Amino acid sequence: MAVYTHVPAEEIDAFLTRYDAGRLVSAKGIAEGVENSNYLLETTGADGNGHRYILTLYEKRVDEADLPFFMDLLDHLGARGCLVPRFIADTDGKRLQQLGGRPACLIEFLTGISVTEPTPAQARACGVALGELHRAAQGFAGERRNALDKDGWHALAARCGDDFDQIAPGLGARVAEELAFLDAHWPADLPRSVIHADLFPDNVLMLGDEVTGLIDFYFSCTDIRAYDLAVTHSAWCFSNDGATWYGDRATAIGQGYAAAHGLTDAERAAFPILCRGAALRFLLTRAYDWINTPADALVTRKDPLAYLRRMDFYAKADPAELLGA
Amino acid sequence: MAVYTHVPAEEIDAFLTRYDAGRLVSAKGIAEGVENSNYLLETTGADGNGHRYILTLYEKRVDEADLPFFMDLLDHLGARGCLVPRFIADTDGKRLQQLGGRPACLIEFLTGISVTEPTPAQARACGVALGELHRAAQGFAGERRNALDKDGWHALAARCGDDFDQIAPGLGARVAEELAFLDAHWPADLPRSVIHADLFPDNVLMLGDEVTGLIDFYFSCTDIRAYDLAVTHSAWCFSNDGATWYGDRATAIGQGYAAAHGLTDAERAAFPILCRGAALRFLLTRAYDWINTPADALVTRKDPLAYLRRMDFYAKADPAELLGA
Repeated sequence: MAVYTHVPAEEIDAFLTRYDAGRLVSAKGIAEGVENSNYLLETTGADGNGHRYILTLYEKRVDEADLPFFMDLLDHLGARGCLVPRFIADTDGKRLQQLGGRPACLIEFLTGISVTEPTPAQARACGVALGELHRAAQGFAGERRNALDKDGWHALAARCGDDFDQIAPGLGARVAEELAFLDAHWPADLPRSVIHADLFPDNVLMLGDEVTGLIDFYFSCTDIRAYDLAVTHSAWCFSNDGATWYGDRATAIGQGYAAAHGLTDAERAAFPILCRGAALRFLLTRAYDWINTPADALVTRKDPLAYLRRMDFYAKADPAELLGA
Repeated sequence: MAVYTHVPAEEIDAFLTRYDAGRLVSAKGIAEGVENSNYLLETTGADGNGHRYILTLYEKRVDEADLPFFMDLLDHLGARGCLVPRFIADTDGKRLQQLGGRPACLIEFLTGISVTEPTPAQARACGVALGELHRAAQGFAGERRNALDKDGWHALAARCGDDFDQIAPGLGARVAEELAFLDAHWPADLPRSVIHADLFPDNVLMLGDEVTGLIDFYFSCTDIRAYDLAVTHSAWCFSNDGATWYGDRATAIGQGYAAAHGLTDAERAAFPILCRGAALRFLLTRAYDWINTPADALVTRKDPLAYLRRMDFYAKADPAELLGA
């Protein structure tokens, strides 16, 4: 959420000569996304009409070896009508470059703003966009393992170990209990596909009630398709602190997704379990970051308990209420 | 150099309705400037053609009481042809607002990039722009004390106290010696005016060899006019680490400034002293920040010794070489 690698504007301007993008007229480091460095660029444009791009330099959290997967995925989705930011090829057809000592890519800029308090109409549009994304992903040949799947949660919980209880007394035991429950009940036979896996409101650009872009695919991977809806549900249907549940948003997301893609009976039946898994996944990554970030660091630590509250909610929720009719 | 106050996009959109600016279509937090929170906004524009703005939320380093001075100054300069970002008035004529619990202003966005390795032609353009700024500042009635004047340096040095030598052995004695020298030699009768006081390459936007904007006036104040040229000189004419001096840039800045504004014999004679003062001013603020920022903090500490090297250079320099003919 900062600019980690500073690239002189002269170097960015020289970098742009590889592309049919015009000359640089503005470059602003932006505070966005996962741990990459991002610049919002403005150029004269190939046609002299001005054009904007995102320049991303990949820091340690994104593995360079994964970039072709993300590039091919966004090309596949974009070609099928999804509003996703495509990686731009230079005049030699090359999309992956080096800049400032980092892997770097020039990426489409999409307009739209990220809502913080989604209305039901906006939540429905998000559900529709996720359904359309899953529909467009059919036939995509690429695969990428979800490093944050159930095995990943076990590994992360083990690394947090005794430190969970620094965050809240009894948290370690609660996590162990939930992992045991999910081991016993995690669905085995649901349809799998490429999923976004991180579709928070931050990663959905909107204008009014219309989705104008889905961004930040750096967690995208191959996993249970309906788990993507569970992640989205856990991100969109609560207050930030997880204390308040917004049933109207949940119904809207569920209906939007079902209208655009459809949900099988088996997916609906497993949905509360998938939501518990989604809540645990974010609880665990937040707990790990909490334990490993000094309290006085200038990075904002996200509260793991906001996802404990969601997990507790899903454990007790009436399954019929989670997705509406 | 980060976004300290996060404002939901819905609130920014609502904020914009006070202005004749159209509706929000994009908002990106940008990593820029002094310790304020800045967003680069794109709107539909009053005319539907799209428009960009900077939204600034003032954090603790800028005193709200100083904002009218900055606003009036930029209006004065802008009205006289300087390329400076003006504060935008809402439909009631109000420029200072509150947003996210902070004083907040909507400001003109200017294109241009900040060079890192200025060519002589770019350095000359910077000198011309500073000279034109000083010419345009004539007749501006506002005054603001320079908190970082010589008295301010003494106060800052006292606060660093014994900690100077944590940075480099003997630094405390060197600072005391320089302060004593400046007390004895600081010029008393040079012309004063409003000055920018922080015209680093970061704060000059350029396209090619043309200046397209002078930004970040939050250190602007009333002081010796030629001291502004000394600050600019110390910022533009060395490698970042202060180890390499670029005489061609210095000659170019001096000639550009002299052509646009003129320099009196008294200003030329005092220039080496003014440069020693400028170098000490940045040495002191960097030393203070260095001492008061934990080494493991994620904020990049700027090296105070880069300005000790400049100060040493100016103390030994041939005065005739500093500004060219």
